[in-house]
Amino acid sequence: MLLKNNFTESIKPQLKSWRRAFHQQPELGFMEYYTTYKIGKELEKLGFKLYVGQDALKSESRYGVPSKELLQEKESEAYFQGVEGDWLSHMHGGNTGLVAIWDTESLGKHLAFRFDIDALPIQETEHEDHLPFSQGFSSSKRNVMHACGHDGHITIGLGLARYIAENARNLNGKFTLLFQPAEEGGRGAKAMTDKGWLQDVDAFYTGHLGLRDLEVGTVAATTKGFLASSKLNVHFNGESSHAGMKPEDGRNALLAAATTATQLYSIPRHSEGASRVNVGKLDAGSGRNIIADRAYLELETRGETGEINQFMLGEAKRMIQASANMHNVEASIDFVGETEGMDCDRELIDSISSHCETSSFIKEVLPSAAISGSEDASFMMNKVQANGGLATYMLFGTSLPYNHHHPSFDFEEDALAVAVDTYIHLVKGENTR
Amino acid sequence: MLLKNNFTESIKPQLKSWRRAFHQQPELGFMEYYTTYKIGKELEKLGFKLYVGQDALKSESRYGVPSKELLQEKESEAYFQGVEGDWLSHMHGGNTGLVAIWDTESLGKHLAFRFDIDALPIQETEHEDHLPFSQGFSSSKRNVMHACGHDGHITIGLGLARYIAENARNLNGKFTLLFQPAEEGGRGAKAMTDKGWLQDVDAFYTGHLGLRDLEVGTVAATTKGFLASSKLNVHFNGESSHAGMKPEDGRNALLAAATTATQLYSIPRHSEGASRVNVGKLDAGSGRNIIADRAYLELETRGETGEINQFMLGEAKRMIQASANMHNVEASIDFVGETEGMDCDRELIDSISSHCETSSFIKEVLPSAAISGSEDASFMMNKVQANGGLATYMLFGTSLPYNHHHPSFDFEEDALAVAVDTYIHLVKGENTR
Amino acid sequence: MLLKNNFTESIKPQLKSWRRAFHQQPELGFMEYYTTYKIGKELEKLGFKLYVGQDALKSESRYGVPSKELLQEKESEAYFQGVEGDWLSHMHGGNTGLVAIWDTESLGKHLAFRFDIDALPIQETEHEDHLPFSQGFSSSKRNVMHACGHDGHITIGLGLARYIAENARNLNGKFTLLFQPAEEGGRGAKAMTDKGWLQDVDAFYTGHLGLRDLEVGTVAATTKGFLASSKLNVHFNGESSHAGMKPEDGRNALLAAATTATQLYSIPRHSEGASRVNVGKLDAGSGRNIIADRAYLELETRGETGEINQFMLGEAKRMIQASANMHNVEASIDFVGETEGMDCDRELIDSISSHCETSSFIKEVLPSAAISGSEDASFMMNKVQANGGLATYMLFGTSLPYNHHHPSFDFEEDALAVAVDTYIHLVKGENTR
Amino acid sequence: MLLKNNFTESIKPQLKSWRRAFHQQPELGFMEYYTTYKIGKELEKLGFKLYVGQDALKSESRYGVPSKELLQEKESEAYFQGVEGDWLSHMHGGNTGLVAIWDTESLGKHLAFRFDIDALPIQETEHEDHLPFSQGFSSSKRNVMHACGHDGHITIGLGLARYIAENARNLNGKFTLLFQPAEEGGRGAKAMTDKGWLQDVDAFYTGHLGLRDLEVGTVAATTKGFLASSKLNVHFNGESSHAGMKPEDGRNALLAAATTATQLYSIPRHSEGASRVNVGKLDAGSGRNIIADRAYLELETRGETGEINQFMLGEAKRMIQASANMHNVEASIDFVGETEGMDCDRELIDSISSHCETSSFIKEVLPSAAISGSEDASFMMNKVQANGGLATYMLFGTSLPYNHHHPSFDFEEDALAVAVDTYIHLVKGENTR
Repeated sequence: MLLKNNFTESIKPQLKSWRRAFHQQPELGFMEYYTTYKIGKELEKLGFKLYVGQDALKSESRYGVPSKELLQEKESEAYFQGVEGDWLSHMHGGNTGLVAIWDTESLGKHLAFRFDIDALPIQETEHEDHLPFSQGFSSSKRNVMHACGHDGHITIGLGLARYIAENARNLNGKFTLLFQPAEEGGRGAKAMTDKGWLQDVDAFYTGHLGLRDLEVGTVAATTKGFLASSKLNVHFNGESSHAGMKPEDGRNALLAAATTATQLYSIPRHSEGASRVNVGKLDAGSGRNIIADRAYLELETRGETGEINQFMLGEAKRMIQASANMHNVEASIDFVGETEGMDCDRELIDSISSHCETSSFIKEVLPSAAISGSEDASFMMNKVQANGGLATYMLFGTSLPYNHHHPSFDFEEDALAVAVDTYIHLVKGENTR
Repeated sequence: MLLKNNFTESIKPQLKSWRRAFHQQPELGFMEYYTTYKIGKELEKLGFKLYVGQDALKSESRYGVPSKELLQEKESEAYFQGVEGDWLSHMHGGNTGLVAIWDTESLGKHLAFRFDIDALPIQETEHEDHLPFSQGFSSSKRNVMHACGHDGHITIGLGLARYIAENARNLNGKFTLLFQPAEEGGRGAKAMTDKGWLQDVDAFYTGHLGLRDLEVGTVAATTKGFLASSKLNVHFNGESSHAGMKPEDGRNALLAAATTATQLYSIPRHSEGASRVNVGKLDAGSGRNIIADRAYLELETRGETGEINQFMLGEAKRMIQASANMHNVEASIDFVGETEGMDCDRELIDSISSHCETSSFIKEVLPSAAISGSEDASFMMNKVQANGGLATYMLFGTSLPYNHHHPSFDFEEDALAVAVDTYIHLVKGENTR
Repeated sequence: MLLKNNFTESIKPQLKSWRRAFHQQPELGFMEYYTTYKIGKELEKLGFKLYVGQDALKSESRYGVPSKELLQEKESEAYFQGVEGDWLSHMHGGNTGLVAIWDTESLGKHLAFRFDIDALPIQETEHEDHLPFSQGFSSSKRNVMHACGHDGHITIGLGLARYIAENARNLNGKFTLLFQPAEEGGRGAKAMTDKGWLQDVDAFYTGHLGLRDLEVGTVAATTKGFLASSKLNVHFNGESSHAGMKPEDGRNALLAAATTATQLYSIPRHSEGASRVNVGKLDAGSGRNIIADRAYLELETRGETGEINQFMLGEAKRMIQASANMHNVEASIDFVGETEGMDCDRELIDSISSHCETSSFIKEVLPSAAISGSEDASFMMNKVQANGGLATYMLFGTSLPYNHHHPSFDFEEDALAVAVDTYIHLVKGENTR
Repeated sequence: MLLKNNFTESIKPQLKSWRRAFHQQPELGFMEYYTTYKIGKELEKLGFKLYVGQDALKSESRYGVPSKELLQEKESEAYFQGVEGDWLSHMHGGNTGLVAIWDTESLGKHLAFRFDIDALPIQETEHEDHLPFSQGFSSSKRNVMHACGHDGHITIGLGLARYIAENARNLNGKFTLLFQPAEEGGRGAKAMTDKGWLQDVDAFYTGHLGLRDLEVGTVAATTKGFLASSKLNVHFNGESSHAGMKPEDGRNALLAAATTATQLYSIPRHSEGASRVNVGKLDAGSGRNIIADRAYLELETRGETGEINQFMLGEAKRMIQASANMHNVEASIDFVGETEGMDCDRELIDSISSHCETSSFIKEVLPSAAISGSEDASFMMNKVQANGGLATYMLFGTSLPYNHHHPSFDFEEDALAVAVDTYIHLVKGENTR
């Protein structure tokens, strides 16, 4: 018989409130100062043992850390927003995120859960039919938006944490909650992985709201199709000159960058599986009457297998260099992010299905769902599996009138309770005392 | 016999000092708040009648006015730098520049002189062999630089003004000095012209330091070859999407902009004369894993005749639209600047040559020099000539180890006295009582 | 017990001889005059009822028929090669290919087999390690080559035909052998299909040598992954002009074509499945000092589903038009070929496997093999299935040191006997009296 | 008093007849077998001493000689058209053109005249308002056309030759008439120059019908603005592969060529004078479903000075290589033609003007006309001048409703008599006994 889970039912207003608060304060990767602080203060109250910032990740393993100037600016803003000084000093220099541990000290499994917390450089829409706007909780920051649902992920993590804290006497084993920074661009997971949190984990669970358009209440136990990916920044350096008087003395970095952007898509579609390439950002030049002497690109390659991604990356590198030669400028390439391919443990399908049978929030558990994005949770999953544990990446259904990364992206808030209830059932199923 | 002009000789240290002060405080077009104020305070002391900002130009005739936010930010900075409130209120909203008049009230010619005062969006070099850097007067502002010599032009204007003020009792006629904002991009001259300053001018003089590599002491009485030009900004609007999961749902504005940039150069070289096209700035997209939904271009076309420029402009407009269609995005084009073709009055060659014969600073007067830039002084010259006056655009020689608009651009400071002395001789030659 | 099939063993020298003869006389699609004739004469001797050329296909349903001039030239060549006049008159105007029928007039199934017979516009390699070259049977025609193995397919068809003729007294049912022209480019199958041969077929078998690198003796009972595709020719018409004296009067068709070629690859990779686009041929302009007034492209799109191919095709059409607008020329698009997606009947896996168990030539029957090409056999298969019959597309293993469509492409001739023996076992399995 | 020149007046029907005959039989450069023969037979009748083919030019100095196969084919055609065997053997292997000499053996100047004889790869229009078509003398050859007026130049040469032959007893000095092959593409003049014909020439005259739209009867004594130029062929070699099944195994030569074509125009417009670049021909690939393994380009660069052309050429070479690297293919560049800059001797303006005063065909002699094409007559002029002689390149006016190199190009046939009469007056003026 399905009984309403009283805990989940009771926490629903809190979930909505958390989600909306985080949605209003989006922060980009490695600049989640305020976000980390807010999460941390909640968990501190609940009694978790916290490892913040430099204690949570291996600093040198981060990819694509923002410039010192930008970090400094964001740290100042966080300070003015009320983030306490000792928290800031733990996070100084873009060391955001935290790990929260609850050890029941009673024999049992070590379960790990990961929640990503960063936002995207997107200007949120102001259409009346966009719920965050019409309900007054849209982003307070220009050109930054939770357009991928990580505000929801944070919320799910806090909901799960509260359950663990309130029910600890009935549980055994150990619980590690990783609130990971900088998932976008594949920049943060490796740094948390390299800190060693996943050495002795028995089962690792993470997942995503949406990704596929599924009814609220539908949960996918596993996913497949995540793409290996590489993230690159490219700087072109040429020579400026007066565009009217001496165009022939310039070496045009803007044209090198534009040539790269238009040419990269001609890398052949690979016959062995899905491939991707995207130049998502291009900034070049300073004024219309000056031959541009500098240009900057942000791009990524992806592949259904590591081999396909390596093919894409190899072609891209040669083409970037050729574009630079084309316009007689210099190119330098920085590698700023990476995700691996990953395989969910199909053994988990049965246990998840059976644990969730008693949830009144879950209508259907799909064995698997196909996806074609990339995820740096791959580093964590591959580490857990290498050490003998099991790992999965789940989906929590919501309708998706707009795609992820769209200015109008939104999800159904009812999906939050579904995800929390799923994790609670896994916790109860695996670690009930 | 050539006698040292005592005035010019005596003012040389002052010229150097002015030039270096302005070089350190470069401001972009229509944001020359501090620059206008500093010029104005000097001229006020000398006794000129001043028309500042909204009194100096026709506000609606300006091209390419910066955004309100940016203007507001720069007005605040100017305020903190000490610009007085009533000056700021005259200049509010990007109405910079000033006109200074000295009327001897004794019968004589009306002579007008124009000096452009804006800087460029270039990051000044930090090489040791760059004099402004090694002597400690390089730009105090990131990505803004006097890289075209307008700091020198301001200085020449102030030097001439002091001469007029100190020698007014020996002069007749009327002197109008136009300190024009926003020459770069052809944005400011039309607004000053439309205010009516050039209705009854008998002779109009303006000019440039450098442009051709000539020895200090060489002066060109006229120039030819200035190109008509059009300045455009283009916005592309597409649709963002997740680059890994749903690339086919995006409409890629970055690719539309890059396609425009790479294609525009294929407009045929015109057989009737020089033509130019340049995309000098391209900003697109927000992050590597998002299909870019917006892009922005700054570009210009030029032609040796108005017809050639119209050909270039017509082709460019069609190609911008085709690039948008190529990637299924929308393009909107703003016209933000314009220069006309112009012809110096060859009658002035003789008068300039003969007036300058007695200058000890001038080694040689060339009748004419060939140029291929563009100048919005064309609006002023064409207006003076339409009203029956004479007009010329002169050059003042300096060696040019680096081109104009190069991060290492510099000129020889000795050229400043040559230019001042030239103008003084013209004033004496034409308007001695 | 596996006994050598005496028929197949005995015919091996003949298979090799046929294959080499056809390899030396490759003909492009709808110009297989000599090939059709040679096949037909063999089948005539065996006693098949023949339908040649206009009797074998519906003329109006052909895609991409060559120009009259080219057809005339090839018909003349065929005449000089000895093709008889009445055969030529049946094939006149590019109506090549034939259908051969053997009706046992004893009750049984109607089995159909299809063999494609055309070659490719590729210049065969002259490397010593290329067997056709070293053994002296490489293509006798410049820029035409059997580089896809259809010479082998013809051979397999002839081998099967001989078996049927020699063993007809032991067989029941009806056998239709379709020797199809112009498979490359998806141009011929629809015309044979529309002639009505597949109305009452119980089982349809076709297949390919190679496609995947498999050991000789390996047979795949079914395949999956064939792509729907569209084939397009594009003509651009501009205006010529002297490239030195009046470049601005030209409208450059060459640039429109080159722009199309470089831009088409930027159609996004579709997240729902494999997609392809290729410009395989570009001819433009007449001489270096003339602005090109005409250009010609041959291209194709493909998609794992019909929807994906329609997406590719829609994008391509818009981009072709935009490229024309970019360079102010006119574009006209001709649709010259098409393939559909197709699904093999999995019911055939078991029957094929069991029929083939007794073949000594077959080492292994794979249930299915994944492919990513396109095939106009899709029209035939879809028709058979729509009428209630079963259909499959099989693979016959060979090592592939070079890809299909490569100048060094070759297959192992031992694979011919494997394929013949497979079809014989299917015939015996299904239609033994 | 202007008297009708009876010779010129009387020869007008003959001029028209010659012109139309040559117009119908256009031949491309180094394949003017029939043209050379027809010219030679006329001159032989008149009594000129002839040097044909290998005796007229230095074979090794030719640029861009067609393939042996093509030459062989055209020699066969010429043979069938009636060109005699010993003439063909002199011209074998693309050694076309001839030099005709008349030595009066009476002391006087050595005058040389050059006439270019080749046609262009253009398909002549079939519009009713195109005179050659409506009058039934348009090109008899597909894709070959006298679209630059060289049919007229041949005619002028024959007219002058007849005058010299008929009036030789009244003339002194020596006359050299060079009927030069392969002017288009700058391929033939150097070879004639290197044979030594211009060593002791006192005055060299050549010119062109049209180029600028001038009234019939207008003659320009000199021209300026001819561009130095370089002519290049480029071959790209990649690797073919099946476009559907293994696109990633191809190396795409078509894309390398298309990239070159779209990128070359981005070489900056040079501020020191006119520049040009044109890709006039691009052939790539063999079929739509094959990744193209080869591509071929014909292109040219031009510059108002040799330096500017070298700049263009240097940039082009780097960009061709970069395009090859972009798509991982190999590029090889052949230099197949060249023209130099050239300066007409202004001393000739006066002599031409005064000699022509008495011509009733000439309405006006312009001192000079500005042009922006390229001419390999530059090699001859520079050689004459280097040896102390004088040289000029003249224009003979005609209206030009269509540009040179346009399928509808035509000139007014009355211009032929003007040109003949001009040369006759020069001959009489300089070398009357």
